[in-house]
Amino acid sequence: MRAEVVAVGTELLLGYVVDTNSAWIGEQLALAGVDCLRATKVGDNVERIADALRGGLQRADAVIVCGGLGPTSDDLTREALAAVMGVELRRDPVVEERIAGMFRAVGMAMGDSNRHQADVPTGATVIEQVRGTAPGLVCPVGGGKVVYAVPGVPAEMREMVTRAVLPDLAARAGAPSVIATRTLRTWGAGESAVAERLADRVAALEGGDGVAIAYLASAAEGVKVRLSAKRPTVAAAAALLDEEEGQVRARLGDLVTGVDDATLEVVVGELLRAGGRRVAVAESLTAGMVAARLVDVPGASAWVRGGVVAYAGEVKHRVLGVPDGPVVTAAAAEAMAVGVAMVCGADCGLAVTGVAGPDPQEGEPPGTVFVGSYVDGAAASERLRLPGGRVEVRVLTVGAALDHLRRRLLGLPLRGWTTG
Amino acid sequence: MRAEVVAVGTELLLGYVVDTNSAWIGEQLALAGVDCLRATKVGDNVERIADALRGGLQRADAVIVCGGLGPTSDDLTREALAAVMGVELRRDPVVEERIAGMFRAVGMAMGDSNRHQADVPTGATVIEQVRGTAPGLVCPVGGGKVVYAVPGVPAEMREMVTRAVLPDLAARAGAPSVIATRTLRTWGAGESAVAERLADRVAALEGGDGVAIAYLASAAEGVKVRLSAKRPTVAAAAALLDEEEGQVRARLGDLVTGVDDATLEVVVGELLRAGGRRVAVAESLTAGMVAARLVDVPGASAWVRGGVVAYAGEVKHRVLGVPDGPVVTAAAAEAMAVGVAMVCGADCGLAVTGVAGPDPQEGEPPGTVFVGSYVDGAAASERLRLPGGRVEVRVLTVGAALDHLRRRLLGLPLRGWTTG
Repeated sequence: MRAEVVAVGTELLLGYVVDTNSAWIGEQLALAGVDCLRATKVGDNVERIADALRGGLQRADAVIVCGGLGPTSDDLTREALAAVMGVELRRDPVVEERIAGMFRAVGMAMGDSNRHQADVPTGATVIEQVRGTAPGLVCPVGGGKVVYAVPGVPAEMREMVTRAVLPDLAARAGAPSVIATRTLRTWGAGESAVAERLADRVAALEGGDGVAIAYLASAAEGVKVRLSAKRPTVAAAAALLDEEEGQVRARLGDLVTGVDDATLEVVVGELLRAGGRRVAVAESLTAGMVAARLVDVPGASAWVRGGVVAYAGEVKHRVLGVPDGPVVTAAAAEAMAVGVAMVCGADCGLAVTGVAGPDPQEGEPPGTVFVGSYVDGAAASERLRLPGGRVEVRVLTVGAALDHLRRRLLGLPLRGWTTG
Repeated sequence: MRAEVVAVGTELLLGYVVDTNSAWIGEQLALAGVDCLRATKVGDNVERIADALRGGLQRADAVIVCGGLGPTSDDLTREALAAVMGVELRRDPVVEERIAGMFRAVGMAMGDSNRHQADVPTGATVIEQVRGTAPGLVCPVGGGKVVYAVPGVPAEMREMVTRAVLPDLAARAGAPSVIATRTLRTWGAGESAVAERLADRVAALEGGDGVAIAYLASAAEGVKVRLSAKRPTVAAAAALLDEEEGQVRARLGDLVTGVDDATLEVVVGELLRAGGRRVAVAESLTAGMVAARLVDVPGASAWVRGGVVAYAGEVKHRVLGVPDGPVVTAAAAEAMAVGVAMVCGADCGLAVTGVAGPDPQEGEPPGTVFVGSYVDGAAASERLRLPGGRVEVRVLTVGAALDHLRRRLLGLPLRGWTTG
């Protein structure tokens, strides 16, 4: 089974927007055991979109085209699909009514341009939209080949590819095997440090029929270790993954913070909820980013009270009761954590203070960050030296703060940040 | 003059690495007045690379291929170029000696694999490498057409494209022209509502030699209207953009919040700074996201004092002094804005309270949001009905809050949110 990806949008060719969709789709296809041999970017032009689709269909069994399904005059993927299929577009009243209903739900009238989104090439099947107003399309093109059209908005695209496109592709492929994956999330070490700890395991797996190990690193989420296993059945793949997860955990220890969708904020939220604790957050350089991430988890009102953004030094002293003097210190971080718990009536406090840059502060270079916490009546803190510029330091601080709280709640040692 | 980009690397197709090179090259081509109508990603396979190059050369005058010039066995761009040109590869002793010298300079011996990097298709010209060990290639393919091969490492690629490829392309193109762009940022209306207001202008421009208008919408940044103009000189293009900006502003009015890099947080920061004002932010459903975005602008400590994340109702009452009673109301938003200004010692207060979902609160459905502000001793508020799920509502609330403050500081009417 071979597929290609076509990403539509003049803004992609002009470099206003980097096409991340085709990389994501390529990854999903690989995990589904579908070969992706080419991806193409084309502009908002019916003939050029159609030309790219035809080229893809010559080489592959399926083409996934993303983008160009919006309501404006430069959204032309529907027209290109009709041209490739050699059919007309007809307005689908069910789709039209569904879009109209979306507008009614927010008390608005649907504009004429949105009606175009209900245009469907004759013979195509609609993939119902759940996130945006653009429906997807499944377009048979003869010879058993197919084009899937999905929106270009990444969240809408991902939802639709996962829900409708990959299952349909798997059904067409007659999938004789399953690829199952499991992601172990880590915090506190860089990609090469994680890779070094797993080097013997990767070497042992190489060339075998077992598990493949891949790394994905980001400032916001640390290093993710992805295990994938191909087996005839789901159960066999899961058993293989269970065994490999044990091998990886034995090497990474408490760097592993969670599995699959269990992000740091999910894990910390679950620990707080299970312990009947409620937290408040005091933030200097991150200015609300830690609190916002804690609240990303639905139901967070059960364990998050709120917080204080103490960006100005005076707010730290006046609102949080931090003693006069320097504020980029372990003592200030601990005082902020205690203070914010008191102010917000919370059981636990979490605080960050430090230097995002570009300039040093109180003689400390950018990247110097103190995380403080107040749990079960005891304050604690750790000093971090984080790499990168202003943006990266702030994003890393958020993860470091959440991992600090995770360690406090689990009674694990505080470790700071190890690059490498 | 037309060009295409081919990005080589199996890791790009599998999604391990996002191809940012072709977006950067596309932008440079546009600025140089060269049309870029397609970009292609292919894996490390001689025939598929050659096939992509041949396809590009059928449609365009030039192809820029990046990647596959390294020393390993899966670096195959040189072989593909020789196949397309119908010539042999020969080892270039000058290039070989230059690579050997690079290794000597760092006290290392050159490996055999690096000698492959000195292989040049007969008839091609070498672009001397200055950053990495991989030289670039200029490959004439007949009919006045050409392929430029540059490394895939972004820093090496950018240096070589800027130094050697763009000047060579410009020389081939003859008649000089520039494409200049300008982005008008808007807030408060959806993409189709903006497009409808500009429909007459887009129709008038169609097929002409004037400005092209494109839209880019996101929940975080609203709808961006991008104007691009192609003219022989920078001055002529700028004059055309000035005129078109006037046309667009006449239709969009105070929906336009800023131009080019002037995001909402930059514009609001500049207004606060110019007025010698300092702001504090009280946030419920956004839990710190508004404050974090205000602080995204370097120097924000001059105009941001801090804030209070009042996620629990009790924090609103106890810390911000909001009167007992419901908190998803205009009165609560105004009281929060006044309260946070007092607590943080700020001149202005900005506050949001509302329902992110998934469940209703105080009888209000998800998407109901009140923004309140306290400016020059006067409180004001507006009620919004925002579309989307929990994530979108929170992101839209941040933009709505910043635009609310912009309007207050400029004395503009408050408008709420119009989808469409």
